[in-house]
Amino acid sequence: MRYLEDFRPGTVVELGAWTFTAEEIVAFARDYDPQPFHLDAAAGEASLFGGLAASGWHVACAWMRLWIDLQARETERALARGEEPPVPGPSPGFDDMRWTKPVLAGRTITYRSTLTGGRTTRSRPGWGILDSLNEGFDETGARVFHFTGHVMWPCRPPTATEPGADPDHPA
Amino acid sequence: MRYLEDFRPGTVVELGAWTFTAEEIVAFARDYDPQPFHLDAAAGEASLFGGLAASGWHVACAWMRLWIDLQARETERALARGEEPPVPGPSPGFDDMRWTKPVLAGRTITYRSTLTGGRTTRSRPGWGILDSLNEGFDETGARVFHFTGHVMWPCRPPTATEPGADPDHPA
Repeated sequence: MRYLEDFRPGTVVELGAWTFTAEEIVAFARDYDPQPFHLDAAAGEASLFGGLAASGWHVACAWMRLWIDLQARETERALARGEEPPVPGPSPGFDDMRWTKPVLAGRTITYRSTLTGGRTTRSRPGWGILDSLNEGFDETGARVFHFTGHVMWPCRPPTATEPGADPDHPA
Repeated sequence: MRYLEDFRPGTVVELGAWTFTAEEIVAFARDYDPQPFHLDAAAGEASLFGGLAASGWHVACAWMRLWIDLQARETERALARGEEPPVPGPSPGFDDMRWTKPVLAGRTITYRSTLTGGRTTRSRPGWGILDSLNEGFDETGARVFHFTGHVMWPCRPPTATEPGADPDHPA
């Protein structure tokens, strides 16, 4: 895993894929978005969507799960290398969330995150914010979902290997 | 229920409240956001949040559920009056989603939606888009969550009671 200073704008991270089964679409919708086109195939076919369609929040939550799973794999790899893995912080928010095509039952969506920028924060020393464009694509390559993400990320801590970081061994 | 033309900017709609139990916070996080501070009280206390905290997506999904429940109640009322209720369309997207305070286990969040504008669309005759500021507040009145929403909404259909709508009875 990397610190804020290690990320370069333009870096693309493949997050993996999520298949939206009819069962999971309906289960999510029953809890959080019980609209007819998310609950029933016939109602979906009669709607603007043309079929049983996943809630937009479900499509967003699948992105979140894949992103967290990626961080977990990165943490395991860092530990295997004997490194102390940074722990990402929370997200202050997201912008420009768009659902541009329906995600119908049975579709597999592939998610990608592209780093667009990183900055330190004055309010929380030791932390910065990473900005990213996050996208989901269907099997034809058509983009179905995207948003701009922000996440708090730890800065590289000062160590004795960095010039000036160790008062006993000034650069 | 009302058509696009019936909404006035500034109208405030109270959506109701949602209590985030520890059980539901953990269940949601296991499926979609398995970060330590969403899964475990001790990990939450050691985090920036200071306690077991609901996933931001969970806080957003509770808003969605309350909004849908409100539409269902409005539909029932319209049917009871003998009216044909309009059926809301999907959302093209959301903007400026912010989680400004953690929602810790046991907290009750009250949600409110304020209409900020409405417009017809050229691409889909008969439909318009309603814009709204959506907010969640904790028991102290502090705002914990907000975003700008957009939803497709049906325009009032032409009827014989409106001047010029019936070619046999022109105004």
